[in-house]
Amino acid sequence: MRLSISQAELRERQTTFFERLQAKGAECAVLFSVTDIFYLTGFHFHPTERPIGFFIDPEQKSHLFVPALEHEHAQSFAAIDYVHSYPEYPGLRHPMEYLKDVLVDAALAGKAVGYDSDGYGSAMGYTGPALSEILAAKTFISLQGLVEEMRYVKSPAEIELIKESCRWGNLAHRLLQKYSKAGLSEIEITSKATTEATIAMIETLGPDYKPHGSPANAFFRGQVGEMSAIPHAVTQNLVLKRGDNLVTAALCDVWGYKSELERTMFVEEVSTEQEKYFQLMVEAQEIAFAHIKPGKTVSEVDKAVRQFFKENNVQHLTQHHTGHSIGLLDHEAPFFDLGDETIMEPGMVFTVEPGIYLRGLGGFRHSDTVLVTEEGMESLTYYPRDLASLICF
Amino acid sequence: MRLSISQAELRERQTTFFERLQAKGAECAVLFSVTDIFYLTGFHFHPTERPIGFFIDPEQKSHLFVPALEHEHAQSFAAIDYVHSYPEYPGLRHPMEYLKDVLVDAALAGKAVGYDSDGYGSAMGYTGPALSEILAAKTFISLQGLVEEMRYVKSPAEIELIKESCRWGNLAHRLLQKYSKAGLSEIEITSKATTEATIAMIETLGPDYKPHGSPANAFFRGQVGEMSAIPHAVTQNLVLKRGDNLVTAALCDVWGYKSELERTMFVEEVSTEQEKYFQLMVEAQEIAFAHIKPGKTVSEVDKAVRQFFKENNVQHLTQHHTGHSIGLLDHEAPFFDLGDETIMEPGMVFTVEPGIYLRGLGGFRHSDTVLVTEEGMESLTYYPRDLASLICF
Repeated sequence: MRLSISQAELRERQTTFFERLQAKGAECAVLFSVTDIFYLTGFHFHPTERPIGFFIDPEQKSHLFVPALEHEHAQSFAAIDYVHSYPEYPGLRHPMEYLKDVLVDAALAGKAVGYDSDGYGSAMGYTGPALSEILAAKTFISLQGLVEEMRYVKSPAEIELIKESCRWGNLAHRLLQKYSKAGLSEIEITSKATTEATIAMIETLGPDYKPHGSPANAFFRGQVGEMSAIPHAVTQNLVLKRGDNLVTAALCDVWGYKSELERTMFVEEVSTEQEKYFQLMVEAQEIAFAHIKPGKTVSEVDKAVRQFFKENNVQHLTQHHTGHSIGLLDHEAPFFDLGDETIMEPGMVFTVEPGIYLRGLGGFRHSDTVLVTEEGMESLTYYPRDLASLICF
Repeated sequence: MRLSISQAELRERQTTFFERLQAKGAECAVLFSVTDIFYLTGFHFHPTERPIGFFIDPEQKSHLFVPALEHEHAQSFAAIDYVHSYPEYPGLRHPMEYLKDVLVDAALAGKAVGYDSDGYGSAMGYTGPALSEILAAKTFISLQGLVEEMRYVKSPAEIELIKESCRWGNLAHRLLQKYSKAGLSEIEITSKATTEATIAMIETLGPDYKPHGSPANAFFRGQVGEMSAIPHAVTQNLVLKRGDNLVTAALCDVWGYKSELERTMFVEEVSTEQEKYFQLMVEAQEIAFAHIKPGKTVSEVDKAVRQFFKENNVQHLTQHHTGHSIGLLDHEAPFFDLGDETIMEPGMVFTVEPGIYLRGLGGFRHSDTVLVTEEGMESLTYYPRDLASLICF
């Protein structure tokens, strides 16, 4: 079992990227997006104040530009032709000055240069000049979203990594449910389930497993009891009590690839009202599943769900769209959203997670990770979705 | 013991921000930085494709602009005068169109408008117009770095939260050392130490503790054995063996405030060569400590360390500067770096972490979190730094 993307596939991505940047009228390109650099080179790193860039020169050679402390790291792990580095940020000479030198050496000056953004950006104390201020190009062409679009349709190898992620997310969630008991803190339950799933995962997969993120983990994110009505709450260190609505999440990185599993659960007992909204949410999810087909737009899925919610007079209790793509980031485009007209294709991977939220009662949301297939879809998540399976004793 | 920043202090920050934006010639301002929004309002959220903004109007009222799914969340937790929301991203009408409406309603049109960046940015599938495209201002004034500079000097309440972070980071590291044994995987050791420290932490602090990040955790980040020579490696799922160099890290969020504790440790035995570089690194750290004083520039600290490395002929084995500020982000400006001329002031908090790296042997780096005081500095980290204390049996 391969637990990474092969060097050959990374190189194919670079070839595809070069073809696509040419189709946009560029002769070469500079990228600063951390995720896109990982996608094209397999180089996983901790982004900081120190600028990192990728570029592909007019001869189609690929280059990484990194701080000195990442030089050996990049050379050891990246699919790349050349690695260049600068001493430090801010340093006595700004890193963008060093970048200018290597771009000129690689013959990018005077060319039609594509870029994803006009310079490096980081919240960690970085400031610096724009790319267009340091390089005298013939012209600059925005390639914003180009690599992101390459990431829409997953390859067979990517799908295998996402399936592996689902498997261990499933285990983490199983343990989260097992340890969810009245009187325990969400953080304690999370810690136990996460540790046990993580250790089982590394014992099973062995040293070939590289997370490039976090191994199997499961949590509540503060969606416990009444707080579960806040769809994107943050961990509150809440204690579970009898009758609580819980909205959970289980995640797992496998060589940077992600999946998402979320469940609405109840502590020991379920009220009639809770059951009503739970069943509506499950039905809404099934309506979404039925509308996932190649050739249809992603907006059709959201439209069908919203129609169902309207018919059941709960549209005022919804607060977000039906789902999003997932891969190297937790949320990626395209979205199951009224305003997104992207056409579904086999190989796209989405979360399906329509939600209902009632102040004072709680939140109701499952999230399943699904793959668009030639015929329709295949659910990669296999955790039970029915009420009886989701009551915690 | 207070485990958060008070509403009064958050409001004072908004007042200070308003004074400072006026000093820059602005009458009002719009911010998109997640960290700065948290700093000014106490609203902690998961940033996604959905734009979030903060603005302060010419009457000095503060506003949050959030997606519908964050509306109640923001109202419940933020120190803010008004919360506005839009249905969803991308939606049938772009969120920036809704933002335009609320900015016009709050009388920002025709004014001198400060901003941190010209629009919302996110790698998670977001695209949209610039702020300057949707709002007809009299003029736009960049306030980039303004709130970040407010964050340089920590208040007494912030320092207390960082000290609390150090306490639990210390425990996580103690357990990491206890569980570091030949034959175990770095992930297994990390999981055990992190879970045990986290549970002790929440049992001790109780429900008032809100992480706004991650509770106590400790890890190796792949810096095990020869891989420890890569200063910013990523978790490799490596197995520890006798004689390995380890470079560790222990972190902990307390209401979003961070600290950093890193240690160079050895599994069971230390070679003469390992000991030599370990002692040089410890001495370099002490030289840095001796140069931390209010009124001196941060560059002087890095200069003194580099001079020491040069005298000992190891400058070619160094790969990064001496340290960075820390607070709401792991890395913040200013930096202990040759190129940073910021003057140290009491209340600044830095990491001190000069490092030595030898391919084939390993890496040598401690990191201590220190506070600049009236007289010099106080180490907030209290984990032992000497060799005898850092051999794992």
